[in-house]
Amino acid sequence: MRRLYHLPLSPFCRKIRLTLAEKGIEVALIEEKVWERPIDFLRLNPACTVPVYVGREGRPMADSGAIFEYLEETGPEPRLLPADPADRAEARRLVGWFDDKFHNEVTANLVYERVNKRLRGAGYPDSAKVKAGSRNVKIHLDYIGWLTETRNWLAGDHLTIADFAAAAHLSCLDYCGDVPWEHNDSAKHWYARVKSRPAFRTLLQDRLPGFPPPAAYADLDF
Amino acid sequence: MRRLYHLPLSPFCRKIRLTLAEKGIEVALIEEKVWERPIDFLRLNPACTVPVYVGREGRPMADSGAIFEYLEETGPEPRLLPADPADRAEARRLVGWFDDKFHNEVTANLVYERVNKRLRGAGYPDSAKVKAGSRNVKIHLDYIGWLTETRNWLAGDHLTIADFAAAAHLSCLDYCGDVPWEHNDSAKHWYARVKSRPAFRTLLQDRLPGFPPPAAYADLDF
Repeated sequence: MRRLYHLPLSPFCRKIRLTLAEKGIEVALIEEKVWERPIDFLRLNPACTVPVYVGREGRPMADSGAIFEYLEETGPEPRLLPADPADRAEARRLVGWFDDKFHNEVTANLVYERVNKRLRGAGYPDSAKVKAGSRNVKIHLDYIGWLTETRNWLAGDHLTIADFAAAAHLSCLDYCGDVPWEHNDSAKHWYARVKSRPAFRTLLQDRLPGFPPPAAYADLDF
Repeated sequence: MRRLYHLPLSPFCRKIRLTLAEKGIEVALIEEKVWERPIDFLRLNPACTVPVYVGREGRPMADSGAIFEYLEETGPEPRLLPADPADRAEARRLVGWFDDKFHNEVTANLVYERVNKRLRGAGYPDSAKVKAGSRNVKIHLDYIGWLTETRNWLAGDHLTIADFAAAAHLSCLDYCGDVPWEHNDSAKHWYARVKSRPAFRTLLQDRLPGFPPPAAYADLDF
């Protein structure tokens, strides 16, 4: 069986879980405490990051971007990149926006400070970072709102990996109750559409011991 | 004419410049002081990062990963990704290794501390960071050495974008005299092979006002 080594609140893992579910590829999920640097896992990925995907051929693949492109090239429909190369570039640009910019400005400041630090026994959240993250998330919600007012989905007419990348980050924040949805109606409406897809169900069932999500987390009519 | 907005010592821009040169695509290089947040440039890329590529159709593209995939999908030979999907995943994993891990552990600690800070008038290098970067670069040279002892190029039998991503970072460090080449012979030998490619020439001619590179920087027999 195909395997995905992951962590529940990793946006990079969630992006791949959404991709797998949307394409109907079943995997066994294996939680991997990367901060303990398990020797067997280091053999699969010397960078010691999740996600790592192991397909039927048994060859481990690391880096969520590389895994996504592999699944897109070899996996079943639906395609999560547009057909036109310039449109594909736009979808990939937005993946970079969320996995790089949003990640550094928001996810790292909120989810990593509040949850990852405690899981790893690495101390208390840095309040300056939490404050910065709370401020930055509003700017990004406005950007999402603006995009979805001019386009059907983030990167154009169709759902793409850009929507999954963005929703993966926001779903991690949402688990912590850190998304001020009232700030931007268009962004909220877009998220409700992504959240109601069957592929999203597995994420909504995630529960971290000692960190229950707010009631709205799994509510499709939040 | 095609344009590339760039900064000379940006490893992400250098990766794209190498890709363009290897494929024989001519571009006008436009230096962009992103830290001044020029309003016209923000219109091209709201993330305000380089590289930004503008092709013949005039549509701006941001994010070096997205630009690379576009050039690979639409540009001329040689291909910089292998044909086999799992081999492609390995090449892309290594791009992620250098653009993410190496970038954070080495490039940001050395090049950004020594050069970018001064260019932007943002103060003096943080000596703890410089020290960490100098320590980390050796570990990465060993990884490169190990890869090239078991493979012809970093990702396999042929030169790929992984070699260019790695060489782009190392060439920025090399401009600052920050690569202890004597540390690993195999890594040095691999870099000499990449450096001697015609595509590399443009990088070796870069000169930053006030920051002359050491003599060995442009020397193919360093």
